[in-house]
Amino acid sequence: MKLFESKYGYFTADGREYVITNPRTPRPWVNVISNGDYSIIASHTGSGYSWRGNAGQNRITRLYQDLIKDNWGKYVYIRDIESGKFWSAGWKPVMTEYQLYEVVHGIGYTVYKHKVSDIYSEMKVYVSIDSPVEFMLITIRNEDDKVRKIDLTTYFEWVLGNFPDEHREFHKLFFEPSFKNNTIFVQKYLGQFPDEKGRWNNTNWDHVAFHSVSLPVKSFTCDKESFIGMYRDERNPIAMSVEKLDNKCDRFGDACASLQVEVALQPGEERKVVFTIGAAKIGEEDPELLAAKYTDVKTAEEEFEKTKKFWMDLLERELVETPDIGLNIMTNYWTKYQAISGRIWAKSGYYQVSAGYGFRDQLQDSQIFFSLNPELARKQILLHAAHQFQEGDVLHWWFTIRGGGPRTHCSDDLLWLPFITQEYIKETLDYSILDEIVPFLDGGSATLYEHCKRAIEKSFKRFSPRGLPLIGENDWNDGLNAVGTDWKGESIWLAHFLYLLLKEFIPIIERQGDEAFAEKCRDVLDTLKTSINKFAWDGEWFIRATKDDGEKLGSKENEEGFIFLNAQTWAVISDITDDERKKKAMESVKKYLLKDYGALLLYPAYTKPRSDIGYITRYAPGLRENGGVYTHAATWAVWAFALMRDVEAMYKAYRGICPPYRSFDIDNYWAEPYVTCGNSDGPLSPHYGRGGWTWYTGSAQWLHRVATHWILGIRPNYGYIDIDPVIPSDWEGFTYKRFFGDTLYVITVKNPNKVSYGVKEIILDGQKVERVPILSDGKIHTVDVTLG
Amino acid sequence: MKLFESKYGYFTADGREYVITNPRTPRPWVNVISNGDYSIIASHTGSGYSWRGNAGQNRITRLYQDLIKDNWGKYVYIRDIESGKFWSAGWKPVMTEYQLYEVVHGIGYTVYKHKVSDIYSEMKVYVSIDSPVEFMLITIRNEDDKVRKIDLTTYFEWVLGNFPDEHREFHKLFFEPSFKNNTIFVQKYLGQFPDEKGRWNNTNWDHVAFHSVSLPVKSFTCDKESFIGMYRDERNPIAMSVEKLDNKCDRFGDACASLQVEVALQPGEERKVVFTIGAAKIGEEDPELLAAKYTDVKTAEEEFEKTKKFWMDLLERELVETPDIGLNIMTNYWTKYQAISGRIWAKSGYYQVSAGYGFRDQLQDSQIFFSLNPELARKQILLHAAHQFQEGDVLHWWFTIRGGGPRTHCSDDLLWLPFITQEYIKETLDYSILDEIVPFLDGGSATLYEHCKRAIEKSFKRFSPRGLPLIGENDWNDGLNAVGTDWKGESIWLAHFLYLLLKEFIPIIERQGDEAFAEKCRDVLDTLKTSINKFAWDGEWFIRATKDDGEKLGSKENEEGFIFLNAQTWAVISDITDDERKKKAMESVKKYLLKDYGALLLYPAYTKPRSDIGYITRYAPGLRENGGVYTHAATWAVWAFALMRDVEAMYKAYRGICPPYRSFDIDNYWAEPYVTCGNSDGPLSPHYGRGGWTWYTGSAQWLHRVATHWILGIRPNYGYIDIDPVIPSDWEGFTYKRFFGDTLYVITVKNPNKVSYGVKEIILDGQKVERVPILSDGKIHTVDVTLG
Repeated sequence: MKLFESKYGYFTADGREYVITNPRTPRPWVNVISNGDYSIIASHTGSGYSWRGNAGQNRITRLYQDLIKDNWGKYVYIRDIESGKFWSAGWKPVMTEYQLYEVVHGIGYTVYKHKVSDIYSEMKVYVSIDSPVEFMLITIRNEDDKVRKIDLTTYFEWVLGNFPDEHREFHKLFFEPSFKNNTIFVQKYLGQFPDEKGRWNNTNWDHVAFHSVSLPVKSFTCDKESFIGMYRDERNPIAMSVEKLDNKCDRFGDACASLQVEVALQPGEERKVVFTIGAAKIGEEDPELLAAKYTDVKTAEEEFEKTKKFWMDLLERELVETPDIGLNIMTNYWTKYQAISGRIWAKSGYYQVSAGYGFRDQLQDSQIFFSLNPELARKQILLHAAHQFQEGDVLHWWFTIRGGGPRTHCSDDLLWLPFITQEYIKETLDYSILDEIVPFLDGGSATLYEHCKRAIEKSFKRFSPRGLPLIGENDWNDGLNAVGTDWKGESIWLAHFLYLLLKEFIPIIERQGDEAFAEKCRDVLDTLKTSINKFAWDGEWFIRATKDDGEKLGSKENEEGFIFLNAQTWAVISDITDDERKKKAMESVKKYLLKDYGALLLYPAYTKPRSDIGYITRYAPGLRENGGVYTHAATWAVWAFALMRDVEAMYKAYRGICPPYRSFDIDNYWAEPYVTCGNSDGPLSPHYGRGGWTWYTGSAQWLHRVATHWILGIRPNYGYIDIDPVIPSDWEGFTYKRFFGDTLYVITVKNPNKVSYGVKEIILDGQKVERVPILSDGKIHTVDVTLG
Repeated sequence: MKLFESKYGYFTADGREYVITNPRTPRPWVNVISNGDYSIIASHTGSGYSWRGNAGQNRITRLYQDLIKDNWGKYVYIRDIESGKFWSAGWKPVMTEYQLYEVVHGIGYTVYKHKVSDIYSEMKVYVSIDSPVEFMLITIRNEDDKVRKIDLTTYFEWVLGNFPDEHREFHKLFFEPSFKNNTIFVQKYLGQFPDEKGRWNNTNWDHVAFHSVSLPVKSFTCDKESFIGMYRDERNPIAMSVEKLDNKCDRFGDACASLQVEVALQPGEERKVVFTIGAAKIGEEDPELLAAKYTDVKTAEEEFEKTKKFWMDLLERELVETPDIGLNIMTNYWTKYQAISGRIWAKSGYYQVSAGYGFRDQLQDSQIFFSLNPELARKQILLHAAHQFQEGDVLHWWFTIRGGGPRTHCSDDLLWLPFITQEYIKETLDYSILDEIVPFLDGGSATLYEHCKRAIEKSFKRFSPRGLPLIGENDWNDGLNAVGTDWKGESIWLAHFLYLLLKEFIPIIERQGDEAFAEKCRDVLDTLKTSINKFAWDGEWFIRATKDDGEKLGSKENEEGFIFLNAQTWAVISDITDDERKKKAMESVKKYLLKDYGALLLYPAYTKPRSDIGYITRYAPGLRENGGVYTHAATWAVWAFALMRDVEAMYKAYRGICPPYRSFDIDNYWAEPYVTCGNSDGPLSPHYGRGGWTWYTGSAQWLHRVATHWILGIRPNYGYIDIDPVIPSDWEGFTYKRFFGDTLYVITVKNPNKVSYGVKEIILDGQKVERVPILSDGKIHTVDVTLG
């Protein structure tokens, strides 16, 4: 069964795969494949690039981003030796007329199926689940009625580290390839970091990369010019005009890797060959062993099965089944996979390469692990805590390989540490995390609790005389980077966020016995509520901020940007105001912001750059934070509408940003229908609804979370599972299964009376209960819930 | 007459033009065209890019460097409207079979002549001599016998500022194109520098760029995808498959510029059309006026003539005529042009883009102005002096637009200030420069003399207990960046250099009446001579340096890099040692370093990275500073051999690096035969003799200088012209003409006795003289010199 079929492809019936049937998608539709250490971006066209550790700092093969041409250059050429005709295992770069072209993006792999001139090829691309090795496992079959002699030739450029393209002429002088055991190895004698004395350009790249193949190499080259030829390109390289490659392998070329193998196929005969690429850290891993171990068809096939199993074992620890197939697919597989593989592990997508972790970014993302593997969330929280200063402030982001990053005066990122910490404890009851000793960046160490406390205390030092938090260099919205740099402008959203945080965190403070601090927090809680309701209400909604000069942002007094989303949704989420204002605020959201493609971040978009506001006003109107749907924030609208019991608006807000549903206007949407986009264009753009910046976005985790926690309403809460669905009234119910440790809960919600919310009865293992306790007895518990 | 003809092209008889007849050169052969403010790199293939002010910081059109594919993307397409066949005004990107293809790289311009399908086109590319505007002046002629309808379509991508290619997805959000008066204008709302409060991403790019054409625009587009088409490329863009462009011009695309005009040509008819690209600084220049003024065929033709005249007026203030045609061509035109246009003005070449001035780099280059326009040398010296700290040390380089650069502990660059200052005074007698008040970077100001003194005094603080200067982070050889970072290692070359500098500068100190400092300098002079001869002599040559651990570099004790060039040549140049050692040292140079393609920088090359030496050991052996011919240093070998009266070695050292002579083995050489290369491969490279890194190299000025001053031996010297040729004995003589202000000297050297050096007689305006005084009477003076 084909789900969400469009002219470019469809989901398979189980939702685990997206099949692309037409390579001419409006934008490259990619898969970000990662094992947390070694990653690939694989485009459906057959191009791609690889890196280890970190996209920005440690690339292995070349990245050259060109959306129009989709030109990255990691390719396998297939050539009929007799006729000389050649094509590629993917569509790119040769782009031949084909008998079949189909690409399957799966969870942890991509498969390219191609048939040209009666030669069928299938190339599986994936990464070993625990080693820094990628596979291109190719099956090639002769569907002709005569013998065919075929050679397969790989081609890609090495980077080995990171440098801008325009410096390739310098960097190419430092590569040393060698050929041994059917394998190309390559070192680079210019590392990207200073040596122990702080001297630049005085180290080696600390890895050895390799490229190998399971069949005997017929010929190879390590020189780009040998392969491409002067004034030619990947589509028509000189390598395809000569019988063999030149076996060039020295330090004097422009380092590429190309291996050529040959097969003769009887009619109907099929052969398998595996190409590997990997990178071994010098002194820690042996590249020769890695290459030898993995460059074998049987091993590669086993690794493929292990990869699939690894992902399913991880992701299927929580499964939903609802009448909404799009919600099912995204919640069960793709948002989890995107958040983990793309966001936390690969740290990159097609549109953006990252060299590190954002403090608040991957902290929020780590919530995806709560239901899958809480230990990984725990690690992530402690890692971020270690990027805090004694003063309580943090690095806005840091390089994960080299370390280091900007100590900024962003006003919210430090607060996500206590926020995510309490969410973690809420789901896991693991209070022990608070006692973990974590270092500060500037020396000393303290418990995680102390880290959280210092973050909150630091934020208390940044208040206006009206009792509202200052926005500083920026808050959640990085692009409001000129609003409050003089530390006079206030952030209303930050007040809401801090209010919710304090409310949730005070019980933890009290449990720590830190009564003086708890009291202080209660006082701030009061102040915030009073000040917000006194100073931030604009009549029909909350303003978003005040600037250093006192002018309001997101107020009816403004001509552009007169209403902002976060100031309304978080007023509801934080419960900082009364029901009437909540209702009015969310009515205003519906009036101005909630559109078919989700909730806009602000309205109307800024049409002129405003140097008193910041760079969101510099974007074209409707793009990204400038009045587009910024998906991260748009997920919070779902949350807020759920809290308001406004099911219609909630579901509209969800469906508008749920990617599979965009299959229905795919030529408008442009983006992959299986992962969330960072943003889609707002109404002032001529491409209203167009998605962009997929994969590397914090919205994936939140889209998952609002579905499970606020639509389905299944919320672990300090040892209990709260159940409070808010669903379309025509749903007959849904099931939700989740492991807690080795204990499985199977929750079945029935909706016989066609209501949208309101739990009438809960039966736990046959017994009626008020609340569902989270047991850890290794058994299966059934929970039957009736709405009505 | 075709000079130095090879399979790829030739020099014209007057040496002012190089004509490329075959576009398949081994490497892109380019022309760096600049007016000191606005620059173009034009490849012979027809690709190119433009920038204003500074290549690294202020690009206008896109740079994407790929030597193999020569792919930059600034193109003009020519299309036969009836047949649909299209090609390009240059060979790239369409690379059609042609009836004629010829490219003329001239001084200040490049002309592309192309004939395809009986349509002849000629495109002149150049820059207005005083405005930030470039021209593509096209003549198109129908050589068919029927009417032909043709359209011309330009295409290029905007950059507007500077950003890495992989961030294009972000930066493309900030462009605003508009179309008005037949012209595309474009602004960018994200500048590359912080605002006045230090906030990034809060300014506009401070220019408006434009693209215009002299014929009515038939159609246009400002969107890359509209032009190229998804998954296509410049060679076969969708724009050439449709009748007209889509006139798209909004903030929502990926900013490019494409203008399309149409002409109908009778048989034999010829039309002219000019396309312009420019960039006007907001608030200072009016882009509309600029576009309107220059986008006119008649104006463009006038500007072309002005450009040619400007350059000839400047360069021909000094002209030589010798039996060595290569020397004539390079000395009269190309080294001057390269040094000024490529190095001082454009600050970039093909292989390297620069965002600023190197302290010692453009200081040395400024010597090119001594004979052409000393005022420009004066300005350059004062500019560099202003990049010194009170302490005497300097910025290693600085950004010329933004300002700022690294304050390093390179041990030689500060000393080039007094060195070039005294060279300037030596040639011009302009002592007044010493009294110019110049600021320090860290506050305060002082005379240039004081700046020079502080540089010398700072260098005095960096001495070893053996009386030798310390090498510090590096000396002239940047790549020796690990030799002496602990301030223990010594630099022998630096001792030589300082010795020469002090010897030449002491008279200036004395003239300033600064006797105490003069005495100190005399003492140091003594010490240097003693210490060098005591500690640096290795038996047959001078060592190059000692490392922090005391080990010698460039000594017979070393296995690799046992002899370095500079330590020998500068021993001679500085006269720091006795004749016997000079002779031995230069014999060793001949034995190990002087090769057919010039003098190697060291021998033998390092084959393994040495983290105790620095990054020269990280290059492949034979490349660049690692045992290649590093042309900058190789010119000094000519100087040293001239001083040694070793004519054969001198001439071999010169001819080996004089580019036109490399035409004879051009497929080995690879590089442009009309400009110097930064380096050519040494004997350990399989491509021994291959040139690279042309255009942006300090060797151009020095190749000029060693030819005029040390081969021809014409040296202005404090009010006199010293004449001391060292020439091949089979020369019958030569002439040298040079203006000093408005006074012209025509020096004719005759060599009736076939000697190589030794002046027998000098006749000035008919009178025998001992020395030739430099007069300033606005007249022409003839100087007849007889050798023998």
